[in-house]
Amino acid sequence: MALESDRGADAKPRVLLTDHPWPDVDVETAIFAAAGIDLVAGPVEAPRAQEVERLATAHEPDAIMTCWASVSARAIAAPPALKIVARMGVGLDNLDVVAAPGRGAWVTNVPDYCVEEVSDHAVALLLAHCRDVVGLDRLAKRGVWKPEAARPRRVRDLTIGLIGFGRMGRAAAAKLRGFGCKVIAFSRRGANGEGVESVTMAELQARADAIILHLPLTPETAHLVDDAFIQTCARAPLLINVSRGGLVDNDALLRGLDSGKLCGAALDVIKGEPNPPESVLRHEDILVTPHIAFLSPASLIELRRRACEEVVRVLSGGRPVFPCNEPAVRAAR
Amino acid sequence: MALESDRGADAKPRVLLTDHPWPDVDVETAIFAAAGIDLVAGPVEAPRAQEVERLATAHEPDAIMTCWASVSARAIAAPPALKIVARMGVGLDNLDVVAAPGRGAWVTNVPDYCVEEVSDHAVALLLAHCRDVVGLDRLAKRGVWKPEAARPRRVRDLTIGLIGFGRMGRAAAAKLRGFGCKVIAFSRRGANGEGVESVTMAELQARADAIILHLPLTPETAHLVDDAFIQTCARAPLLINVSRGGLVDNDALLRGLDSGKLCGAALDVIKGEPNPPESVLRHEDILVTPHIAFLSPASLIELRRRACEEVVRVLSGGRPVFPCNEPAVRAAR
Repeated sequence: MALESDRGADAKPRVLLTDHPWPDVDVETAIFAAAGIDLVAGPVEAPRAQEVERLATAHEPDAIMTCWASVSARAIAAPPALKIVARMGVGLDNLDVVAAPGRGAWVTNVPDYCVEEVSDHAVALLLAHCRDVVGLDRLAKRGVWKPEAARPRRVRDLTIGLIGFGRMGRAAAAKLRGFGCKVIAFSRRGANGEGVESVTMAELQARADAIILHLPLTPETAHLVDDAFIQTCARAPLLINVSRGGLVDNDALLRGLDSGKLCGAALDVIKGEPNPPESVLRHEDILVTPHIAFLSPASLIELRRRACEEVVRVLSGGRPVFPCNEPAVRAAR
Repeated sequence: MALESDRGADAKPRVLLTDHPWPDVDVETAIFAAAGIDLVAGPVEAPRAQEVERLATAHEPDAIMTCWASVSARAIAAPPALKIVARMGVGLDNLDVVAAPGRGAWVTNVPDYCVEEVSDHAVALLLAHCRDVVGLDRLAKRGVWKPEAARPRRVRDLTIGLIGFGRMGRAAAAKLRGFGCKVIAFSRRGANGEGVESVTMAELQARADAIILHLPLTPETAHLVDDAFIQTCARAPLLINVSRGGLVDNDALLRGLDSGKLCGAALDVIKGEPNPPESVLRHEDILVTPHIAFLSPASLIELRRRACEEVVRVLSGGRPVFPCNEPAVRAAR
């Protein structure tokens, strides 16, 4: 593999890893060492955007990899020979997708490493609610055995509404099929397949007993679930969010639960994480997991490996497998 | 309908309902009134066996219906013209199945009213464990957002072992199919269908990452899961019980969790309920729901209606739809 860098003819290409919410960087180090690439690893916890800008300026990386840290237009502009900004994950809301291609760099993600996990998680949250598992276990842990407190529902009798019908939505629909419930979905591109009925957003709000958010956070989808959205829901649905916290207005959610317009919520993501409002975190009618829908031992290794391989591919002059944007101007090599 | 009783030519037939763990008997009263049958309703909470014997002696019912109360051979022997003992549920472990037919009475149950609910519940418990939903929500309710505490697993990578492969087991297998996990099952009659591999008990113990109990409690199955059973499990499985508490030796279960031979348990039924040992109820690694796997608003109405209809059928001289035993001597009419 012929790898180059403008830091000098004999300098190795360099990757800046802005953050890594796993304890070591053994997987990344092994892959990059084998490819003759230097790794500069940031901290476990995501640094602020300004710190990422400082690191990008100081280290002049050929590639920036980020998990949760924000990668701003300024950070993308800083390295003279940046060729790729690689998201270690699916969503692109923490990097400046527009700035990178203008700068001549690829943007990549790993869109399918955790399809099993996220769809498992969405169905797990739905079933936990339908079978009242969490509320009843809370009572048990206080020493209380109280069957008459149970509020279970028969899944087959429900209509489940998916908003977004990409890889995750389709996988959730396939898993729900075995339960015999009606699955309807709204997607801008239409929702066809997996025995799902494609509906308008208004139909979904009118018919759904549970709503699962399976869509990315963009300027258009931010606060999709707000007061107006919730008021339009007819059947006091359960709201499940396994996508991005910013899709939901926390205050509107709390008002929706108080007024009975929503029967409950199950959130793997909350706006404000990793310090979400206590009023959401501790709410009795909100089932909370801390943004781990993507996670399993298998998925995490796969994510790290595949994100690194994408960087190696681009720094070796190849085209990425999952480009999110075509570079407008190819980086000078 | 010609209904008779030996309490006198013009006396109406009489049903003794030993207990009803739902607040009113409106459903039962309506069905029996329409059929010209008198209803004597016991309390909400199940009385002791001796009290049931006293009620059966005092009221001389033509039919005894029970939900949770024990119906002994003595209770069955007391009424001079008993024609049916109807279980309002699936399991028959709380009534003397052998005594009734010898006495000339049918035994009936409602074996399929809650197949959806119990199989939903079994999968809900499995997924709640695999996605660490309950443990993470417990942290959230203490105000803690801690993704690094999560221990989720990819369901597709697991082997799920079903013990028992009747209506419930088959329904659970059908629902699990969408998750892509391997499903194996042990049944004395073989486990064929729903993409399941029929295995011996030893194979199941060697291969299962989670074990779901879907079998009745009988003298042969009591304490099926004991120290020896748990020691033979190779993969530190999760134990899920949605059938009867008596299938599991509580002390052996606690030892299995302590020693790491089991990775966890999820129990809808516990030996000793409605007052199960606090050591089980409050255990951090045991997810508990209070015997509600069968329950939904739809299933409960269906159970009550169908159990009553079976009684009406027999007291009208018909044959029950779900006989559990053929009367050896038909009751004198």
